[in-house]
Order: sequence, then C-alpha cells, then structure tokens
Amino acid sequence: MNTFGQYFRVTTFGESHGPAVGAVIDGCPPGLELGVEDIQAELDLRKPGQSELTTPRKEPDRVEILSGVFEGRTLGTSITLVIFNRDMRPYDYSKIKELYRPGHADYTYQQKYGRRDYRGGGRSSGRETAARVAAGAVARKLLAAKGIQIVSFARMIGGVWLDAEEPGMREEPGRVAANPEGERIAALRSDIYGSKVRCPHPETAAAMEGAIQAAAGQQDSVGGIVEVRAYGVPPGLGEPVFGKIDARIAQAVLSLGAVKGIEFGDGFSLADMRGSQANDRFTTGSDGQIMPETNRAGGMAGGISTGLPIVCRAVVKPTASIGTVQKTVDAAGKPVDLAIEGRHDPCIVIRIVPVIEHMVNLVLIDLFLAQAAIQGWA
Amino acid sequence: MNTFGQYFRVTTFGESHGPAVGAVIDGCPPGLELGVEDIQAELDLRKPGQSELTTPRKEPDRVEILSGVFEGRTLGTSITLVIFNRDMRPYDYSKIKELYRPGHADYTYQQKYGRRDYRGGGRSSGRETAARVAAGAVARKLLAAKGIQIVSFARMIGGVWLDAEEPGMREEPGRVAANPEGERIAALRSDIYGSKVRCPHPETAAAMEGAIQAAAGQQDSVGGIVEVRAYGVPPGLGEPVFGKIDARIAQAVLSLGAVKGIEFGDGFSLADMRGSQANDRFTTGSDGQIMPETNRAGGMAGGISTGLPIVCRAVVKPTASIGTVQKTVDAAGKPVDLAIEGRHDPCIVIRIVPVIEHMVNLVLIDLFLAQAAIQGWA
Amino acid sequence: MNTFGQYFRVTTFGESHGPAVGAVIDGCPPGLELGVEDIQAELDLRKPGQSELTTPRKEPDRVEILSGVFEGRTLGTSITLVIFNRDMRPYDYSKIKELYRPGHADYTYQQKYGRRDYRGGGRSSGRETAARVAAGAVARKLLAAKGIQIVSFARMIGGVWLDAEEPGMREEPGRVAANPEGERIAALRSDIYGSKVRCPHPETAAAMEGAIQAAAGQQDSVGGIVEVRAYGVPPGLGEPVFGKIDARIAQAVLSLGAVKGIEFGDGFSLADMRGSQANDRFTTGSDGQIMPETNRAGGMAGGISTGLPIVCRAVVKPTASIGTVQKTVDAAGKPVDLAIEGRHDPCIVIRIVPVIEHMVNLVLIDLFLAQAAIQGWA
Amino acid sequence: MNTFGQYFRVTTFGESHGPAVGAVIDGCPPGLELGVEDIQAELDLRKPGQSELTTPRKEPDRVEILSGVFEGRTLGTSITLVIFNRDMRPYDYSKIKELYRPGHADYTYQQKYGRRDYRGGGRSSGRETAARVAAGAVARKLLAAKGIQIVSFARMIGGVWLDAEEPGMREEPGRVAANPEGERIAALRSDIYGSKVRCPHPETAAAMEGAIQAAAGQQDSVGGIVEVRAYGVPPGLGEPVFGKIDARIAQAVLSLGAVKGIEFGDGFSLADMRGSQANDRFTTGSDGQIMPETNRAGGMAGGISTGLPIVCRAVVKPTASIGTVQKTVDAAGKPVDLAIEGRHDPCIVIRIVPVIEHMVNLVLIDLFLAQAAIQGWA
Repeated sequence: MNTFGQYFRVTTFGESHGPAVGAVIDGCPPGLELGVEDIQAELDLRKPGQSELTTPRKEPDRVEILSGVFEGRTLGTSITLVIFNRDMRPYDYSKIKELYRPGHADYTYQQKYGRRDYRGGGRSSGRETAARVAAGAVARKLLAAKGIQIVSFARMIGGVWLDAEEPGMREEPGRVAANPEGERIAALRSDIYGSKVRCPHPETAAAMEGAIQAAAGQQDSVGGIVEVRAYGVPPGLGEPVFGKIDARIAQAVLSLGAVKGIEFGDGFSLADMRGSQANDRFTTGSDGQIMPETNRAGGMAGGISTGLPIVCRAVVKPTASIGTVQKTVDAAGKPVDLAIEGRHDPCIVIRIVPVIEHMVNLVLIDLFLAQAAIQGWA
Repeated sequence: MNTFGQYFRVTTFGESHGPAVGAVIDGCPPGLELGVEDIQAELDLRKPGQSELTTPRKEPDRVEILSGVFEGRTLGTSITLVIFNRDMRPYDYSKIKELYRPGHADYTYQQKYGRRDYRGGGRSSGRETAARVAAGAVARKLLAAKGIQIVSFARMIGGVWLDAEEPGMREEPGRVAANPEGERIAALRSDIYGSKVRCPHPETAAAMEGAIQAAAGQQDSVGGIVEVRAYGVPPGLGEPVFGKIDARIAQAVLSLGAVKGIEFGDGFSLADMRGSQANDRFTTGSDGQIMPETNRAGGMAGGISTGLPIVCRAVVKPTASIGTVQKTVDAAGKPVDLAIEGRHDPCIVIRIVPVIEHMVNLVLIDLFLAQAAIQGWA
Repeated sequence: MNTFGQYFRVTTFGESHGPAVGAVIDGCPPGLELGVEDIQAELDLRKPGQSELTTPRKEPDRVEILSGVFEGRTLGTSITLVIFNRDMRPYDYSKIKELYRPGHADYTYQQKYGRRDYRGGGRSSGRETAARVAAGAVARKLLAAKGIQIVSFARMIGGVWLDAEEPGMREEPGRVAANPEGERIAALRSDIYGSKVRCPHPETAAAMEGAIQAAAGQQDSVGGIVEVRAYGVPPGLGEPVFGKIDARIAQAVLSLGAVKGIEFGDGFSLADMRGSQANDRFTTGSDGQIMPETNRAGGMAGGISTGLPIVCRAVVKPTASIGTVQKTVDAAGKPVDLAIEGRHDPCIVIRIVPVIEHMVNLVLIDLFLAQAAIQGWA
Repeated sequence: MNTFGQYFRVTTFGESHGPAVGAVIDGCPPGLELGVEDIQAELDLRKPGQSELTTPRKEPDRVEILSGVFEGRTLGTSITLVIFNRDMRPYDYSKIKELYRPGHADYTYQQKYGRRDYRGGGRSSGRETAARVAAGAVARKLLAAKGIQIVSFARMIGGVWLDAEEPGMREEPGRVAANPEGERIAALRSDIYGSKVRCPHPETAAAMEGAIQAAAGQQDSVGGIVEVRAYGVPPGLGEPVFGKIDARIAQAVLSLGAVKGIEFGDGFSLADMRGSQANDRFTTGSDGQIMPETNRAGGMAGGISTGLPIVCRAVVKPTASIGTVQKTVDAAGKPVDLAIEGRHDPCIVIRIVPVIEHMVNLVLIDLFLAQAAIQGWA
C-alpha cells in the first residue's frame, strides 16, 4: 500500500538510488495557491547536510510539479511532485548486495519480494519520506487556510529531555490555547527549525547536540522522542470507528521505518492513573465555549477532536547504519563482520521531525475533507 | 470509516443501545469451516459478567450468521455477523441526555454530527468491539490454518506488572520461538483466559485483582498495559510503505477508544539506546534458517515481518465511567456534579485483552491475503 | 467486492435462501429524517407478486433498521438495513444441486469458489438487489433534499417500444428541463409505478403486457430496455478520470446480473453521426444560464454533469429461468434435460426498473459527497 | 478519482499541455521482466501521426520508468511511468481560453473546479490515455504469462461494418476458442495494428479509410464501434457483486471520454430475444471440460468468467474537434462562431482501439489478483 488517505490520497513512489522519488496527490481541492517554493521550503527542513549533525550526503532535493497546478493554483486534478535523485555517484554495491544489514529491511524485502534494490535501502530508505514531506506541504497550506497549524520537535534525544514547562511549550488552558494566534505558533516553529536538533530551547538543544556528537565519535548513533502538537483543530475531526484521529495518526507515524511507538496525551502514564485522575472534565470558557478543562487525552475523546491541541509523542530508534563493526550474515547465511562506511545520520530524530509533522498534516487534511463531505445536510 | 482492511474488509455497525451490533466481512476465502460456535467462543472471552471484576450487565452476546456460510463452510461471499442487543431495559436517559460525561465521547459526537445516541455511549461504546471480536474470530481460524497464533494478556494493571521472565512468556531465540508448537501457545492462551484479569501468572494475577478491587472500592477505576504476541508469522508480511505491519497494527489497536498508545518490540526504551544496542543482528539457526538474533524490533524490519514473534504493548486508560462525583457541564455549558451510577467495569483492561488480540488477527489476515495476491509470479 | 461507493459506501450481503439479505451504509450524513417506511416504500416497488406478470413468490420484504438511526434521524454512523428471508419453504434442492442451469451463475460460482449455495441463485440471485434498493432509498432522500430526482421506466419490452415523444417524456430545451418542477417528475414516477410493466404510457404498457403474456404462455421469457433520467443534477458532478459520471453509472448498472449493456444520451447512434451532428453546442438560456442546446451526450461532458438531465438506457436480457426444456449438463458433465419449475418472472424488466433507478441514486449521492468535500476552499 | 483498481492500482496524472502525463502502479507483483521497450511498444500503437488519418501532431511519447523496476524486473514497489510533453510550442490560447467548445469538457471542468487548464483539453484531453496505455502494458505482460491475451479492433467506422464472419474473427465453439494458441491471437493483433484503421480485414479497412477521408474533407469527423475480445481468461474471474467482470470493464471503458456505451456478448440484441434463445446452455467438450455451448453472454455468467472469450463492443462518438464552424458561447454567455483550427483526428476510433484494449488489461489483472488472494485455502 503506497497510498495514504481516503479523501486526500497520497501515493508515493521511488527507491533511494533509482531515478526519482515522488508523490501523486488525488483529491486536493482546486484553487489553492501553490508554487514549487511552497514545497521546496518544507523539503529544505528535511534535507541532509544542514549541519555537521546530519549526513553530509548532497541531496539538493529539488522538487518539480508535473501536474495538477496551473497559473499558480491547484486545478482539482491529480498533483504530481517529483524529486529526481541526483547524487547517484558510482559506488561498489557488491559489498552490501549479498549482506543483510542489522536494523535494516534488506532481509525482509528479500523475503517478501524475492528481490530488492540493494543500492542503499531502496524503497525502505528514509529517502522515501521526502515524497511525504512534499505532499504534506500541500496539506499544510490547506490546513493553514483553516487556521490549523502543526509543530513537531525533539522532546528527547540521546537521553536529554526537553522539560515540558519551557517557554513556548506551555499550554494555556482552554480556548486560547486551542486557537492560538498564528504568530505564536509560527514563532515556535521558527525556533524549532532554527535549532540544529529541532529543539526550540537553546540550552536543551546544546545538550542534545553533545549527546549526538558523543555517539558519533564512537561510530554509533542515538535515538529520541519527537512530540507533535496540532493547534486550531476544530472539534469534530476523526471518523468512527476505524478512522479515529489517534488511529490515523498512529498509522501515519508508525509507517515511518524508524518509529517504534506512539502515545497520545498522557499516553503510557495513563496506565498508572485512576479514572478520577485521567478523565478530562468539561468546563465553559470565558467566551461560553464548552471545552475539556485538562488535556490528558491529547485533544480528542472517542477518537474525535475536542478543540484542544492534538498532542502525541513518537519514539525514534537510533539510526541503524553505524560505523561500529556488527556481526551479521550474508545471503548464504555465512557470518560476516560489517562496518557500514559512508555518510549516515548519527541521529535520525533531527530529520524525522519535519516528516512526522507532515504525516500529521496528511491525516488532518484527510479528516477535514471527510467531515466537509457530510456537513450541512440537516 | 467503519471499514477496516483492504483485502479482508470488515465493516462494523451498531450503537450500544440500538437493536444490534455486528460486522460484515468481505473478502473471506471460501471453504473455511465456520460455525456459530467458533465465533461465540471468542465473544464469550469478551462478554461482561464473567467475574466480580467486570460489569454485572447481562449481555449474552449471542451471535448469528446472516450470510456467507452454507453447509458449515464459507462461501466466498460477504459474511454477516449480528449480535442483537437484548438487555435493553427501560431506563431514564434524561439525566445524561444533556450531559457531557468526562472521558467519554458525548461532546465530540455532538460536535461532529450535531446529534448522538445518548443512551450510553451509542456508537462510541465499547460494546461496538463485540463486532470486531466476531470478525476477528473468522480471521483467527484462517490464520490458524497457516500456523499463525496470537495471544494477548495483561502486562500491567493498576501498577502491578507481570515480569517478562515468567513461565510461558519467555522467548527462546530464533526459529523455535518463531514457529512454536501450537500446543505451547494454545496452553498459554488457555492460561490467560483462565485468569479473571487475563494474566497467565497466578500470583501476579492475584495482585492485579487486588489493585482493581481497591479502586472499585473507592468508586474509581484503573488502567493498564496489554501485550500482544503473534507467533508463527512467516517472513514477508507487511506492505510498504503505508501498510507496514506496525503501522497497520497501530491503527487497529488505537482505533479502540480506551487505548492511548502503542509500542513495538523494545518500544520507547529504544529512545535511550544506541544503534549498536538497538539493531537486531542476523544469524543462522541450526536448521540453516537466517533470522534476527534478538527481537528488539518486535518481529519486523522496515515494517515487514522477520519470522520472529510480533510483539507490541498498548496502554489502556482507566475506565472513564466511575461512581466518584466529577464536575462537568451540561449541553448549555452549566456546571453539573456527575456520579455515574450503574454497571461499569472498574478495569477495562480485562475485557479489552481479547479485543486487541482480534484486532491483530484482522491485521494479519489482511496482510496475509495481500501477500498471497502477489506471490508466485516470478 | 461487495461494497459500492467511495464516500457513500454501501456493502451488501445475503444469499437468496439464507437467513437474510441487507446492506450497511457508511458515510451517510447525519440528521436526515429516515424511517422504515421510507425504505419500505421503495422495496415495495421491487417486490414480487404485484401483478400476474411477476413471480407469485411471496417475499414480503420487510426491512428493519439495525443501526445508524435514532429518534427518526440518521446519526452519521453506519446504517444497517436487513430483510429477513421468510418464504423459505422446504424444497428439494437435490434436483438442481448438481446441475448447471443455462443463463445462471451456478457454474461460474462453482468455478470461482469451489462451492456455492445451490438453493436458488444464492448470492447471484436477483434477490440480492433488494438490499441495493434499500440503500438506494436512503440516497434518494438525500438527493431529493438537493432537488435531484431520478426516474426509470421500461423503454422497450419484448419488442414493444415506448415512443420517445410520449407525454411526460418530452425534453424541453434547457434550464426548464434541467430543473423541472418536482411535481412533474413526481407525477411521472407515479405513472411509471402505476403501470404493471413500469411504462408510463397506457397503450404502450398494454402492448408490453401482451408480449410478456405471449412468452409466458409458451413457458418462455422476454427482455427489454430500461431508460433512466436524472433531473436536477447540478453541473459539476463526476470525478475525473475514472469516476466519470457515465463510468460510475455503467459500473453500477452493469453490476446487475441481467443487464448486458448501457448507453448514454444518443448512445450507439453516435457511431453513425458526424461530429457536426453529435456535438452539443452551448447556448444561453433566458435566465442567462449557459447550457448545452441539445443533450446528445446525456447530460454530461467529459464525464461531468452539465446541468441537463442525465439520460441512459440499459439492456435487460430475458429471464434465464424458463419452463421450456433446455439441454444442459450436470456437475459431472453428463447431459441433462432441464425444465425449470416453479415461480419465475417471465419478464425481469418490470422488477429491475426500480433497482436501476436506485443504483443511479447510489452513484449520484456518492459523486455529490465527493464534490462537497472539495468545494469552498478557494 | 484518478485511481483505478483494487489490487493492481493505477493512479494517473497529467494535463495535455502541462509538463507530463503518467501513471503510478501499486500492487504489481515482483519479478516481472519489464523494460522501457515493453511499454514503448504499446504507446507507439496509440501515438498520433502514424498515418494521414490521424492528427499530424508530433508527440513522440517517450516513456520513462522512474521507480519500481531494477535490473530489468519489477521490485514489488510502486512503478512510476512518465511521458514528458515535448511538443509544447508557443500558441495563442487567448482564443479558446474564454470559449466553451462543443462536445468538450471546458464548461463542465469550469463548473466543477472553478478553473481549468484551458490549453487544450487539460486533464480531460485524450492525451491522458497515454498513461493508461503505459500502465496497461505492464498488465498485458502479467496476463500473457498466464495465457490471457486481449485484442480490440474497429468493428465499425463511419457506417462501414466489419462482418463478424471474417477470417480471424470467427469463434470456434468451446475450449479451442477459449484457449486458442497464442500464435493465432498474436497474428490477429498484428493484423489489427498493421491496419491504419485498426481493422484486420483489408477490404473493410479500405472502406473505413474512405469514410474517414470523406468526413475529413468536409472538415468533419466520424465515430464508430470498437470490439474487444479477451482470450484465455480462466473461469472464475469477476468479483460479486459490484466487481462483476462486465461492471468493471464497463467502468473502465466508459471512463474514456469518447465512449458513450458498451454491450457484452449479444448486448442490445438480447432485448429482443426470448430466454430460450438467449441462454447459453452448458455442454462438455471433447476433453471433458464443461463450458457454455454458445457465447451470447460474452464469456461470463453472473459477472464471472466462464472460460469462453470475453466479448464486448463500445461506441465511440465522432471527434468533437472539427474545422466546421459551430455556434457556441463564451464564458460570458455571448454567442460565438467557432471553427477549431489545427491538428485533430478525423476519427478517434483509430487511436482509442489500443486504449480500450489496455483498459481491459487493467481490469483483468485486477480481477486475477483478487482471485489469487483468496485461492488455495480449502
């Protein structure tokens, strides 16, 4: 299944070392102002080589729009976004062709399909996520027009945590936080991407950088936790029963190879609470608007948005590609010592932050269109 | 979206206090031996009133097969399973009709649809999951024919943890654990459902019972963590890129209202590891079979099964319906003190254990059929 | 695929001699007034035994609503409609169990699934279409609220044609015909179902009756042509490129077992025209509204509605079940002489008229919701 | 809906005068030998400029494979096929920008989306079908590996009919015709594409050419009828109830803008028959194989293939773009005289023949994979 979404349907394609990666979007409303620069700006947040903390691979990641946009606006027809793979320098793949790299999908693709593109990760490469970001950039513009904004950031890297009470992170109760001024969120997003590690708190960010460099110095890698917050989501998004907002976000985010878990609101902490603590009680804001008083459930009830921010956290495993020698086997089952050379990210959290944000953009636009279809009848 | 699955498509219906709940299965292979008793046996694992720890509501939950089965075997046509709601005693709903119960979906359904079935949870009720179990029972039989068996159990309830090293839980390395004798898994499953709290270790189970009773005595509820293990899954299941096995299980399990998070393999612990620790290295079993030496990734790589057991854990929030007085508001926004009377589960973990198992059954049969469609061409 | 539709998704189930047939509707907007009587009224148009021209089988076809409706309005949740099969009198099926009836799907179901419900047509029976009518009745109510009305009628039966220029059938040019007063269409529909053969012109209807009786007297059956006209369809419905309005209607109508062809507008006659004749030129109505001057394309251009009536015709083959002796073979391949006894329709056109109408209702509501989802963005 | 298929899913994109048209295929089995030349060969059958009877527009239609193929075989991942639009010479579109051309979708796209790519047909252009042919070429290779071959040809053009009894067209009864030697079908296909008008009978072809030239000489165009025959289709393909083989082919073929009707087997002639004539009776071939004795139903019963050739005919309207002066209106509703200049096909039948064939390829591979998914369980 290379397609995501029921209403805003994104189909991605491409292998890491093939001619291109890209996406086709079907179901985008017509009339949206959209230019290459809108998409490029988001791709640039993900592209490698932005600091010494990411792989120095050169992937200019220039997106082209092949269809669906005319005179600067979407036509309502399918939109095709393509990023040609340009840094395809000759490389001797014979070394890894017959190997199953630990933590990678070489073995499972081979088992599933009986063959694989062994030049890098092929379809299982993180490079595939560039297409998701490109599609997410379109979703982001649509959502912004409805007052919805999403940020994601590094909540933890290599054991270094961002304290929830940091400036910019604090949740004001109720409506104000639910529909915050765009400026505040935009500023927060700007702070996040101004940080090499995608953490808006400079001191914490510095400590995270240190953790990454320590691991990188030992030819190793670190993992972390990414938090996502969606602001301005109106009440009523989410489709019972299998399209609950958390179910859809979980699928979206877990479909990233490096993510191994997700939790919403207070998440795993809820296992230890009693109902009297865990329940979000309803209250009435100063403007008469009913809303939950707390947000332990992460902006939803029964899988439908409440109007409070959607909040979730995803765990990102440490990068599988490391320079340290690892024992593994080749395709014949013979033991091999493998030290992965070359250009790899010592901490994939940094580059996955915008990808996760855009996966949530894709979920929310899909649920928004689903709701739009049934509204206004009675 | 009341439909789950691409190849084995399950559409559920029904409100908790309406005439019936049920499911239609489309895409079930023909020729499977299937009787009401196969489905009833699974429903009985979920039904209330099995011990003093669950709601004393009487829901006999008798399933009927309305289509798709003839002479004891599936026809290949759509299979309809219906459970009529029988315990519909007269009740004065005027009390809750205008209230938004904390932790429930009353408010969000009202916001989404402009109306709701206020007699209990309606469509958002846990009762809807009976239909999932019924459909899952069919998937379970199909999977069993291919040597795949799934168990789920309470890993933690109310702060009481089941130690991973308990008998029956231990993972032998490699192929043996991947394709265990059906007997061992069947015995484990039997132990699980022999326990009131769905925990196969008697001493732990007793402590969990105590925790539930302590909360119940205070008109409160507790949450917990459910673990799922799927044995005998062949390598190659999981559909890149959005149908990864973990992405699909995450959607399936998070689509249960009480679940607020999920993790696979070592899950959130991976955030703190280095790549050299987290990577599952490959080895060769005594039978020459290549397999991961460890199972930190929970039975998959790149979202495709490795042949080792699929392992995940889901967090279940404490039951929202509690007898304790809670402050909330009515539909007009006026503050109200609410003490939910009546028959509720002090710990929903117990009854959600089989539901989660069956959601994973639904995912695996869907991925199995997806793989069957493309195999054998070249 | 037992599901039809992308936005208004209808899943049907049931075998002709099993416990029930029915449908689950997913994606119906909330708030629609809906009662059993709305659905029953449509089912009654299709049910057998309405005149001596249809099978005397007693199928009271009482529909029950199992979910999705509360306090007389749709909830937005999945709606389940069930018709229990009540006329299940004991019958010796051993005669046909091992036979492949000419014109029926016995052989192909056996080949496809390796088994079949041999008691009548099973899943391939026309009885399955009762579920479609039930679902279509819901679509019809939704469309009526938007000013869209569909009629279908017998254009030809057994060689007797209804002349296109008959009262009630004439197409006034332009807007008037495009948005006719509901009363005129309602009266036409009433005339159609007031006729035993579903033909609104009494003299023609009488001749059609004669043709049917002539065939029935010879233990034979006749076929015919059904015409559908959808009025009040706004411009803009139809989804490029595979969801064109004609493509979707074609799928919908050809999914009826007895239909073997369909044409839109001037249909097969267009093969003989030149472009200068076939093209619908645009003009401006007295109200300034642009519209096609003619309607040779049947209410569409490029698969999107123009605002003029959607017009199509479907060919219905003669009923396969006839009393005449036919040569065929049994499951072992041995020649057999078969005379089908019992209660069959000498002309299935009569009963398929409302079914085709409702299939078009299902298409149009689906396309309407699709359009609603993307409108109003820019 | 720019996606076709449930198992072999093809998503197309592109406007006629945008940067490219193309398709993404999801669900293609791995291991298929596939090269650019396989696809190019099929595209070449559709491309313009092959004779003086088609538009002299230069569209070299060079296809590129951007993903999903590696070392000459499919990977199992999504396959992307792109045809860049190269003949984009500067042209003054201001003439047609504000016009609604008769027989074209200018008006309806404008109504649907509020805007359109007015440079030619945009998304509604026949050029979009190049993407379908490219995808169909992949389906064709898969089907050929299973012994399934499809041909389509001009049955009628401009009033000139190909007599059904022509050499190469005759249907031998039973198994021989059902599984004809590949050579015979290949030779027939070769004859078809060796003809300028895609008619395998030289004298008839010459008369068709004359009809086209007569119309072209008058700045007009002609329509026709295309017949499709699929050989070697095993019994059992087709998915009850909405995925019947004729329903799916009807949707596929009617999704071509110029097609206005379709019929299967004896089609509209069945309306005039009695059941005793219309029914295909079963017999046993010399090899003991049960099969229908006649093929009035066009290779199916109940929407499932019988093993006999699938046969259908589609009506193609005359080309809408003609040089003759036509009255129409502009976007303001003002009357305009329009004579379409430039390079147009006087008979689109010629170029639509391979497109229809490939749409049927797409249907059959989809149904084949659907059947593969459920087979072999019991």
